[in-house]
Amino acid sequence: PAEEVVVADGEALLSRDHISSFEKFAGRHIGPREADVKEMLHCVGISSLNELVQKTIPKEIQFNKELSIQKPLSESELLDRLNKLGEANKIYRSYIGMGYYNTITPSVIQRVILENPGWYTQYTPYQPEIAQGRLESLMNYQTMISDLTGMAVSNASLLDEATACAEAMAMCYATRKKKTTNVFLVDDKSHPQNIELMRTRASGMDITIRVADFSNWTENKELEDDVCGVLIQYPDTLGRVSDPSLIVGSAHKAGAQVVMSTDLLALTHIKPPGELGADIVVGNAQRFGVPLGYGGPHAAFMATNEKMVRKMPGRIVGKSRDRHGNEAYRLALQVREQHIRREKATSNICTAQALLANMSAFYAIYHGPNGLKDIASRVHTQASVLATGVQALGHKVMYDTFFDTVCVELMEGTTLADIEMRAVAKELNVRLIKNKTTDAVCVAVDETTTEADLDDLLWVFGGKTNQIVKVADFLDAHRTRSLTGFKYPQELVRKSEYLTHSVFNSHHSEAAITRYAKKLENKDLSLCHAMIPLGSCTMKLNGVATLRALSMPNFTNIHPFVPLDQAKGYYEIFEELSKDLCEISGYDSISLQPNSGAQGEYAGLMAIRAYLDSKGDDQRDVCLIPSSAHGTNPASAQMCGMKVVAVRNDAHGNIDMADLKAKVNKHSEKLAAMMITYPSTYGVFEEGVSKMCDLVHQHGGQVYLDGANMNAQVGLCRPGDFGSDVSHFNLHKTFCIPHGGGGPGMGPIGVKAHLAPFLPAHNIVNIPGGGLGDAKNDGHSDQALGLISGAPFGSSAILPISWAYIRMMGPGIVNSTHIAILSANYLAARLRGHYEILYTGSGGMCAHEFILDVRKFQQSAGIESIDISKRLIDYGFHSPTMSWPVNNTLMIEPTESESKEELDRFCEALIAIRAEIREIEEDVCDRSDNVLKNAPHTAEEVSSDVWEHTYTRTKAAWPAEFQRLNKFWPTVGRVDDVYGDRNLNCTLDVEV
Amino acid sequence: PAEEVVVADGEALLSRDHISSFEKFAGRHIGPREADVKEMLHCVGISSLNELVQKTIPKEIQFNKELSIQKPLSESELLDRLNKLGEANKIYRSYIGMGYYNTITPSVIQRVILENPGWYTQYTPYQPEIAQGRLESLMNYQTMISDLTGMAVSNASLLDEATACAEAMAMCYATRKKKTTNVFLVDDKSHPQNIELMRTRASGMDITIRVADFSNWTENKELEDDVCGVLIQYPDTLGRVSDPSLIVGSAHKAGAQVVMSTDLLALTHIKPPGELGADIVVGNAQRFGVPLGYGGPHAAFMATNEKMVRKMPGRIVGKSRDRHGNEAYRLALQVREQHIRREKATSNICTAQALLANMSAFYAIYHGPNGLKDIASRVHTQASVLATGVQALGHKVMYDTFFDTVCVELMEGTTLADIEMRAVAKELNVRLIKNKTTDAVCVAVDETTTEADLDDLLWVFGGKTNQIVKVADFLDAHRTRSLTGFKYPQELVRKSEYLTHSVFNSHHSEAAITRYAKKLENKDLSLCHAMIPLGSCTMKLNGVATLRALSMPNFTNIHPFVPLDQAKGYYEIFEELSKDLCEISGYDSISLQPNSGAQGEYAGLMAIRAYLDSKGDDQRDVCLIPSSAHGTNPASAQMCGMKVVAVRNDAHGNIDMADLKAKVNKHSEKLAAMMITYPSTYGVFEEGVSKMCDLVHQHGGQVYLDGANMNAQVGLCRPGDFGSDVSHFNLHKTFCIPHGGGGPGMGPIGVKAHLAPFLPAHNIVNIPGGGLGDAKNDGHSDQALGLISGAPFGSSAILPISWAYIRMMGPGIVNSTHIAILSANYLAARLRGHYEILYTGSGGMCAHEFILDVRKFQQSAGIESIDISKRLIDYGFHSPTMSWPVNNTLMIEPTESESKEELDRFCEALIAIRAEIREIEEDVCDRSDNVLKNAPHTAEEVSSDVWEHTYTRTKAAWPAEFQRLNKFWPTVGRVDDVYGDRNLNCTLDVEV
Ligand SMILES: Cc1ncc(COP(=O)(O)O)c(C=O)c1O
Ligand SMILES: Cc1ncc(COP(=O)(O)O)c(C=O)c1O
Ligand SMILES: O=C([O-])O
Repeated sequence: PAEEVVVADGEALLSRDHISSFEKFAGRHIGPREADVKEMLHCVGISSLNELVQKTIPKEIQFNKELSIQKPLSESELLDRLNKLGEANKIYRSYIGMGYYNTITPSVIQRVILENPGWYTQYTPYQPEIAQGRLESLMNYQTMISDLTGMAVSNASLLDEATACAEAMAMCYATRKKKTTNVFLVDDKSHPQNIELMRTRASGMDITIRVADFSNWTENKELEDDVCGVLIQYPDTLGRVSDPSLIVGSAHKAGAQVVMSTDLLALTHIKPPGELGADIVVGNAQRFGVPLGYGGPHAAFMATNEKMVRKMPGRIVGKSRDRHGNEAYRLALQVREQHIRREKATSNICTAQALLANMSAFYAIYHGPNGLKDIASRVHTQASVLATGVQALGHKVMYDTFFDTVCVELMEGTTLADIEMRAVAKELNVRLIKNKTTDAVCVAVDETTTEADLDDLLWVFGGKTNQIVKVADFLDAHRTRSLTGFKYPQELVRKSEYLTHSVFNSHHSEAAITRYAKKLENKDLSLCHAMIPLGSCTMKLNGVATLRALSMPNFTNIHPFVPLDQAKGYYEIFEELSKDLCEISGYDSISLQPNSGAQGEYAGLMAIRAYLDSKGDDQRDVCLIPSSAHGTNPASAQMCGMKVVAVRNDAHGNIDMADLKAKVNKHSEKLAAMMITYPSTYGVFEEGVSKMCDLVHQHGGQVYLDGANMNAQVGLCRPGDFGSDVSHFNLHKTFCIPHGGGGPGMGPIGVKAHLAPFLPAHNIVNIPGGGLGDAKNDGHSDQALGLISGAPFGSSAILPISWAYIRMMGPGIVNSTHIAILSANYLAARLRGHYEILYTGSGGMCAHEFILDVRKFQQSAGIESIDISKRLIDYGFHSPTMSWPVNNTLMIEPTESESKEELDRFCEALIAIRAEIREIEEDVCDRSDNVLKNAPHTAEEVSSDVWEHTYTRTKAAWPAEFQRLNKFWPTVGRVDDVYGDRNLNCTLDVEV
Repeated sequence: PAEEVVVADGEALLSRDHISSFEKFAGRHIGPREADVKEMLHCVGISSLNELVQKTIPKEIQFNKELSIQKPLSESELLDRLNKLGEANKIYRSYIGMGYYNTITPSVIQRVILENPGWYTQYTPYQPEIAQGRLESLMNYQTMISDLTGMAVSNASLLDEATACAEAMAMCYATRKKKTTNVFLVDDKSHPQNIELMRTRASGMDITIRVADFSNWTENKELEDDVCGVLIQYPDTLGRVSDPSLIVGSAHKAGAQVVMSTDLLALTHIKPPGELGADIVVGNAQRFGVPLGYGGPHAAFMATNEKMVRKMPGRIVGKSRDRHGNEAYRLALQVREQHIRREKATSNICTAQALLANMSAFYAIYHGPNGLKDIASRVHTQASVLATGVQALGHKVMYDTFFDTVCVELMEGTTLADIEMRAVAKELNVRLIKNKTTDAVCVAVDETTTEADLDDLLWVFGGKTNQIVKVADFLDAHRTRSLTGFKYPQELVRKSEYLTHSVFNSHHSEAAITRYAKKLENKDLSLCHAMIPLGSCTMKLNGVATLRALSMPNFTNIHPFVPLDQAKGYYEIFEELSKDLCEISGYDSISLQPNSGAQGEYAGLMAIRAYLDSKGDDQRDVCLIPSSAHGTNPASAQMCGMKVVAVRNDAHGNIDMADLKAKVNKHSEKLAAMMITYPSTYGVFEEGVSKMCDLVHQHGGQVYLDGANMNAQVGLCRPGDFGSDVSHFNLHKTFCIPHGGGGPGMGPIGVKAHLAPFLPAHNIVNIPGGGLGDAKNDGHSDQALGLISGAPFGSSAILPISWAYIRMMGPGIVNSTHIAILSANYLAARLRGHYEILYTGSGGMCAHEFILDVRKFQQSAGIESIDISKRLIDYGFHSPTMSWPVNNTLMIEPTESESKEELDRFCEALIAIRAEIREIEEDVCDRSDNVLKNAPHTAEEVSSDVWEHTYTRTKAAWPAEFQRLNKFWPTVGRVDDVYGDRNLNCTLDVEV
């Protein structure tokens, strides 16, 4: 709470400060209390936070000022402000479509999933034994995608439909027949943002995008033989449902793969891509219950066939078995991912959209196959009614085989401007398409559309004549009449079943779905139970107040492509957030478009390339990356067409200066960039970072500083000051967006002024060029990069979270950094003597995280880091990051939000585990049958009738006193990864 | 979901019905699907729901029509409507005080407690082994109340401050020295609604209220010797803090008890009542984080000394131990309560305000003692600033020893009308007091008040002269200045500590409080885990959509005493709800004031008394009550000054007609009323209920039909049609208000037209006389009853829940009733053959619940109902109602919201338990060491190293296959009630 005010004798302390001294959020966000901080400092052997900073952060890069951020708002002041900003947004009804639709989020899903910290505070389910709940939910999601698309396997989500298209393109490219087969052929009726984003991505790789009209494709038309893949939008962006068989046939004949980008709701009615020969299917699951949110977050999906599964990017959940032979889920085929494949990866995707995938899966469970089909029928009926009405008004319906989107050619005398004016009068948005030949208007209806909405839409089409047609005029209220004009092509009517698994057919009452969601929640260890000390993940508190915008209709119900003046509240938040991020990072300008850290890396490196190109330095394509870097770094560099050159780390974990110098010299001509993670992935503030930056600059390169570890820097040092040119910020780490069990996240980038003109633009919404947050920026850029995300500001709906966090912390945000560093050093100090701590800075301090070296136990006791990880579960804790960045070690990051009591309990557990290892070392315990090797222990196991271990049940399950009244039980025993990958199964088996 | 619409060939089904066919809530609310219903009917041996009705409900009382209720809204239509209604409320800032204050609900408490079904769907913690979470939370609450009031013990909440005053009065009366000591002396500076409510209550009992001015009490002034108790408001209603010692001394000298009604926040600064000699302390915990909600729900409190604890009404949580000797909480001293003491009870309170008590306790945990003191300091400072400003404007501050409420005597020339006009201009409410001598204005500030608010308030006091004084004018921004004018009397400054227990001093970060709340949540079995088949409790689903108003600021931020025109949205809901309740019940008019079922009973019986009085029948004071009636019935009758005469039940559980006739004849002259529960507490639709009503009417009595079992009647029969004059409706049963672990609830009453003039009025808000919902009612009544609750519409904020339920069900609400009855009969049919079912109607059917007779197992196996109850926990189920209305039986009520799968699991468990009993009967298992006697089994026990039972661990803990992956563990073993009552401990022991 705020400073204590003593009112000993009832005398009022009168000051304006006092009457306005609403309680500060900082005391809620930061775990340790003042007295705790003293004890922690004492334990670390220093006397003040200032001394801690001095010993931790190299002198020459220290910031030494107070951040110029508005003074903190209290929680209730923040909510007042948020309400006002919400009112500044205009909530028009949007019928724009283009992959984003209004949807009804069932209240129970909103409350029990989206607004429940038990569902949104977890990390990616890397520890399957305490993550069976959301693993099962993601299996449901994958099954839903597989079923609806008609494909064999699905991944557990991608970022958005546009990036999913690009990922699919990369897969086609990676599996192309010959080096020269580098054309990707794109349907000209694809959503324009998809095309534009693929163009961006193609430009970094060796791919040529060719846009073509597939509508008049003929039987024997041959594909050029330089084509590696074809993308078909189905239904297309103008709403038309047409049979892609001819182009699919030509593609396959030519050895090209077929990608289809599609709509899940339409697939309940029309033949799935899998039955039409698609090799890869992508799309967005948004309209399955996830609010528009001005562009995101939503879960995009990708599904493919068995042949391609090992090439599919993103996480995949699969079935395996546990130590006892019971069924258990876990992440499958992890060797595909960038942290293993690095620059050989075809994708850099890491954080995806798990929470939103889960919401969509629950939406399908809630409605079931019949319910979904029913919604689709209503939507289709409404579109047909609209089309009929529009025709009655004299316009032409351009395509009569639509699902939900009616494309209208305006009659003589009615102009786009007329439509626009009338739409504004009714507070609604439609899609206006200016064509060389004719103008068109597209209207996409959805499950929220009512008869009154249709009447308003028809009013809009009334045009200048002001003719009024109402639904009631041509549809009798009670008689069921069928209009034959609007039906799907006979051969495209879906005949196959979907969502036949019982999970989609048994939780239809609210009580049932609540229990199912709670059952899954309770299998998972989240921040609601204990700290999650995952190094490099910054699992800090996600304060409820910061999340409120996500539940406010005037933030959630906005289509990403509305005119900017309908999103003024958002825009004010974006501007403030960008300004604050500039102040915190020392950069000049921000792009909020990248919707994950990896996307930020990609956008930043692409901006560097564009900048170098603009200077005529287009030969520069070497990217230096320390071998300790996160896998997304090399993967991103590769996607930009850069050549990755690894720089060695020295014995202290630092970048090997000699090697760097050598590499810089060697590649001087071609040096494009160096990527540095700071503090390093080893958790150390390396000395000489500015020297490295200078060196790179001297050789004509640019510096990309990976901002994943910003939580150690905020208020203490600024990348923009000490030499970096660009960074991404994982808002889902340092800036409090909850991890959602594997996403959403946001990875905006900050750049120095010279790179600002090269920040991403948007082809549909006219966002200011040159980024946000820079007072000097004139909001115009000819050199802007293409799209990085489908939506102009990425996953806009979660940006208010980071904004709120900064607003409530104010300049005191530096205290988060202090305590994050102190907490890490406190843990290190307490554990030292029991374990070896790998790497510290020159002052003997680690940054906000550190590595526990457990490698010697392999020899001494046959124990590896995984055994300690799993044993921690028996103590009620989530494991630290396992075997990254150093194999067979544990990287611990406590964050500032954990109380000293929690830190102490965690130490107690690790110290006790050390003693358990010693018992093995000293042969007191068996080398193969011991509490570590067999960990974690389930309730079922320790309460079974037979117990044949060499240790007791109590030792197995109740190792610490602090669990006695609050034990978290894993629901499965240790999961067998190899078995699962050998017997890959990523969809639910339908029960017989 | 809605009916399936087949779109086989892509042809649109065009009809207006179809495009508007949004999914219905009924399918979400009702558990069994259509196919299930068929199977269930088959099992019961009937062919249709209509046949079920015919066999269950006596012909002559069947309704046989569709209810005339608006057609159902879908969930999203409902939310749209609710938003519009919210906009119809005017959200002015209220500084009215009088026991209701603005407060800031910390977002984390709102989300993790108030909006979390894991906290709001439980029943009263009658099964302590699966309720340790909220029992601990209520212990925290009691400790908070004890500490702040300075009293030895507190109960776990009462309904509101006004009823708490009346309860205290009743305690004083019950413990009075002599029969003639029947005067209760009340501070004339008490909140007027408290005085008025005590007047109502006193009128039913033999108590005389005498209102007195205590402000000039002198040292030796003696109390009249007919006084049994004194009530002091502290601080008083005008805000003054004055020393009550003289009146306390006089009271004690005269043998009267002292009740103090107080304010928790003030008590962080001023001497607690316990140190001033109070015997009983009451008040409202609302301002500890519970929104105003236009009057409630909030938790009132009562604390007393050890001498009086056994006389204290309401539930009390106490510490005891479990079978293993571990500490465990449970409800203490249950023998005090009305279900045991019946007409000898001094109180009828049953459902209280557990959820709100828990919120307030969490608010105290969140802020801790220093945080609370800090808030109080800010509030006091603001009041002082306001007083200073008001003086500067030329007005007189009437009392200078205030805490938060400034009472202003207006200067010459400024009138109340001026103030009122200016307040409206600023959209704020103050309290205007028209006095014989001078007019006054009271302003109560609170933790939400800002400097801008104070400036607005000072503007309001500017009066005609339009003089402007701003806080900044007389308070320098940075200098701390103390004004000596406004301080508490020296002797009243609080010196003693409070909230010293660690629970109030260790969960101050949001992460810590989240984990604490989740830890407690996870100890409790709620509707999120399994059905809670408590007979007479109707534990049905509480749909999230129905609860939304509770999270909407334009429903929550309204003071109960604002002018009606600021609450138009609420009022529209009240009118619709009342009309629907009239239609459902067959009554003519509704009062929404009673805030629990028991309060409804009391209000209904009082209305009967007033009606009889108005006819000159004031000798009529006999109330006939079947001996099977719920304990609140006789307790309520007694509180109205009626004499309870019990009517016997016959061997079939029905009211013994012969006995009834005899009693009616015997008491014909004095017959006031008969109370009937229908269907009976045995779960049977008795034949002849209309005959009984006729009989009572013939003898000049009125019929009170207890509406607790309305869930069996809605849409099928109507009390108002078959002869009843008045009923209460437990909205927290039939109409979906969640039980909150023991409240909140609402008990509005419906009456026939002749009783309407006698419905409660309100002394502050001019609510329409004669109740709501009656088109013919002219909204005026001279004969109205006094107050039943402090607020005009009771716990207004939860009324939208019932409204929403009815709006979304529409006339189809009758399907809830069908399925509730079917489900009970299905369970009975499945269990018959394994157990005996006590009582059914003449058609062989039970109503919505039934009694399982387990009495014979006492003899055959030494097993009692409690053993089965506890064993059900091992199967993951909550026990049915135990030993009520028939001792040593189990009463089962499934409700319509449970799926057939859940009902089947429950049967499976009970059938398996029957087999376990048989093993004892057949000597296969030990009579004392068996799974029933030792149930429930904790994880600790079954995983302990030593196992000395005669049965296996697996049998103990894993009796059913369906639990394998989803086991709910009780956190303590069977709790020892006797030990706890012998060693009463109702506050947390402060750790040393
Ligand atoms: C150092 C580092 N860089 C980049 C990333 C990638 O960020 P994202 O997962 O948001 O794509 C991570 C993610 O853990 C990281 O730790
Ligand atoms: C038959 C019956 N009547 C009255 C009541 C009292 O209602 P309340 O608890 O709301 O005061 C109950 C409560 O369970 C009941 O079952
Ligand atoms: O709570 C009851 O007493 O039913």
